[in-house]
Amino acid sequence: MTTLDSKLNEVLAACERNRERDLADLFRLLAQPSISTQNIGVRECAALERELLQGAGLEARIFETAGHPMVFGERAGPAGSPTLLLYGHYDVQPPEPLDAWDSPPFEPTVRDGRIWARGVGDNKGQHFAHVCALRAWMETVGDLPIGVKVLLEGEEECGSPQIDAFVAANRALLAADLVVTADGPAHDDAHPQVEFGVRGMVYIELTARGASHDLHSGNWGGIAPNPAWALVQLLATMRDADGHVLIEGFSDDVRPLSKLARAAIAKIPLDQAGALAGIGVGELPPPREVPYFERLMARPTLNIAGFRSGYGGPGSKTIIPAEAVVKMDMRLVPDQDPDDVYAKVSAHVARHAPEVEIRRLGSMRPSHTPLDHPLAAPLRRAVARGFGAEPIDIPLVGGSLPDATWTETLGLPSFVVPYANHDEANHAPNENLMLERFYAGIRTTAALVAELAG
Amino acid sequence: MTTLDSKLNEVLAACERNRERDLADLFRLLAQPSISTQNIGVRECAALERELLQGAGLEARIFETAGHPMVFGERAGPAGSPTLLLYGHYDVQPPEPLDAWDSPPFEPTVRDGRIWARGVGDNKGQHFAHVCALRAWMETVGDLPIGVKVLLEGEEECGSPQIDAFVAANRALLAADLVVTADGPAHDDAHPQVEFGVRGMVYIELTARGASHDLHSGNWGGIAPNPAWALVQLLATMRDADGHVLIEGFSDDVRPLSKLARAAIAKIPLDQAGALAGIGVGELPPPREVPYFERLMARPTLNIAGFRSGYGGPGSKTIIPAEAVVKMDMRLVPDQDPDDVYAKVSAHVARHAPEVEIRRLGSMRPSHTPLDHPLAAPLRRAVARGFGAEPIDIPLVGGSLPDATWTETLGLPSFVVPYANHDEANHAPNENLMLERFYAGIRTTAALVAELAG
Repeated sequence: MTTLDSKLNEVLAACERNRERDLADLFRLLAQPSISTQNIGVRECAALERELLQGAGLEARIFETAGHPMVFGERAGPAGSPTLLLYGHYDVQPPEPLDAWDSPPFEPTVRDGRIWARGVGDNKGQHFAHVCALRAWMETVGDLPIGVKVLLEGEEECGSPQIDAFVAANRALLAADLVVTADGPAHDDAHPQVEFGVRGMVYIELTARGASHDLHSGNWGGIAPNPAWALVQLLATMRDADGHVLIEGFSDDVRPLSKLARAAIAKIPLDQAGALAGIGVGELPPPREVPYFERLMARPTLNIAGFRSGYGGPGSKTIIPAEAVVKMDMRLVPDQDPDDVYAKVSAHVARHAPEVEIRRLGSMRPSHTPLDHPLAAPLRRAVARGFGAEPIDIPLVGGSLPDATWTETLGLPSFVVPYANHDEANHAPNENLMLERFYAGIRTTAALVAELAG
Repeated sequence: MTTLDSKLNEVLAACERNRERDLADLFRLLAQPSISTQNIGVRECAALERELLQGAGLEARIFETAGHPMVFGERAGPAGSPTLLLYGHYDVQPPEPLDAWDSPPFEPTVRDGRIWARGVGDNKGQHFAHVCALRAWMETVGDLPIGVKVLLEGEEECGSPQIDAFVAANRALLAADLVVTADGPAHDDAHPQVEFGVRGMVYIELTARGASHDLHSGNWGGIAPNPAWALVQLLATMRDADGHVLIEGFSDDVRPLSKLARAAIAKIPLDQAGALAGIGVGELPPPREVPYFERLMARPTLNIAGFRSGYGGPGSKTIIPAEAVVKMDMRLVPDQDPDDVYAKVSAHVARHAPEVEIRRLGSMRPSHTPLDHPLAAPLRRAVARGFGAEPIDIPLVGGSLPDATWTETLGLPSFVVPYANHDEANHAPNENLMLERFYAGIRTTAALVAELAG
């Protein structure tokens, strides 16, 4: 057994002893709302994150941006050792609808072996597992065998509008050999995984306006324009009933799956019927011929995230709405570019419904790291140690992270290891994280520190 | 001057003296919420209406129904005199959005010569003008020269689901020679009007369901069905971009305008640009070739009254909604039948989107009384006396009332005289009634009692 091995064993033993304290500190983080899109509690949460990073022995600072602040912590490694950059985000999605939660979203609690709270999976419980592992190293060994940097941003849930500019302006501060992120749910709880890329995103809001106020639909029906109809007719020109996107050029830059990616996909266990049953769905939506993983890794989406117009309460109300608003997100795959896609969507709207207003609320580039990158190997070993099972490779995941900031802006390899369970219900009521996966995440990060030093 | 003339003069003089008291009693009625679709305050309002009818010298009762109660008052006339049935409704539309009101909807107030409150125009201020006129007759003359019945229902804003059965079961109670309703806004404040018919209505709710809960649009985008898209695609099959309804047979029974109706329409003053400017609209929506009044009197509508799915708040939320709900009302013209139209819409939904649930929330038959009916003459004279200007004839109005209950179930002539101003903002925030029109309505009803006796 090498010295490093025995140090890691000591650290892992400390992690076991620290279970209660780690959970208590996570609860502090979860009890602090940090809803970036509504600007609720974000700054307070940033201050708490800095305190927790300092408690793990890092030098920690808050960086102001044009939006919500970045929290940054670092500790240099021995000369010649590699540097690991850990990324996470401390902001959360809005918790609505509140009455759908079994326990209040900002009052964390443990029930049925899971922690329940808004943001526990996405992303506080995951990035805080990194912090707990670093704290265990510092308290047990008194030092780290590699350089470590932690960057926590405060508006990932708004599409990370500041991260590119911040990273581009702070290249020296963020210099590293690889980036590792713990985020998203596992595809399958039985198999830990290493993810090599993410879909990008464009988020838009469409607004149609009719009369200056809601009108009586009898007195004005036939006379006043209906903005809900305007958006329905516009949307119908954007996608056909079989699910094909009709916006000109929308899919032009979609890169077909590589041979390596196809081989990796073939090894991913898939219980399609079980996955669909888990969300209460009987079959895949059209276009039916596209296989499950190709939908997530090689196909963009055109999603209606919200449609609001007129009366939505119980019973009936006979009005012609004055306004209609649609929110849409488009998930993008390599090599689609958000600016290019937004320009194409804008042109489509201008052509089919020039009276409809389009606004961009967020953008994120798709990103990927080669499946055969050499730094994938130590990471796979760390995950196997932390979770007690060999990980599988996921070429690309369906969700979006500002991963292109690492792979393109900094030119680094970037990997995502999801610590959360497949049914974490992120962005939904009753968000949760399995307790044992939180602890497996801590062990994984602790092992990664040793693997990269070895 | 006949005795009847001098009695009417006395009554009209009393109406002038009663202005403050009539307004105070109307305020009591307006301060009592009576939102039928949400079952708020309805029964309390019915009790108050009975008290006010009793105060006008009528024998008044509350009749239970399968829904909200009916309030009925009556006073027999001299032998051989005709009987006038006055119809109104004491329920109101929901007041939302509350923050769009300049003063609270259930705290009536006078400002700029108008009364502001939910339900003041639709319909409390209008039917209460009838009651004030009867009270003035009883207090001044001590009797009525004709038989009078007043029927106030409690769920007109839900589509009057009980009125047909109630009327059919109480033919003797409701026996009369004509029905007069004060409801809806005037087309044009400068000209009082007599309306001879109404559009009917079918109200439906469409529900599409996707996954069992809202999902993260990245992790599930491409896998989970989107119910908002399902409704968009369905709606797009129901109406084209030019406003033509595509539901098979939807317009089959639309009766073309008669010669008499066309002649009456030609006499209706129309400031189309002014009317559109008043609602903040530049031009009529497609189909552009249809003239203004033909849209209201001879064309059905297919209106989206509400579309609710996913996130509608500020900023962005990246979800695939679990559910989408659309509320629609269809205004029907003679000789369309609501049951027949509903069957055709249901068949359309079943054919194009069998997974979408359709529910009927209300129905009302279109109705009309011949423009040359002999009882129109005394009514026109009463309106001229009350408003101080000759009324114009409106063959059909765009809104819906359970008028077919009178014309078809009871076989009576039925007329509507709107006491409310054109911009009463019924069904919308800042509903209002011009004070002077309230008093003109009282005078009109007072004169009608004399005209029918003469």
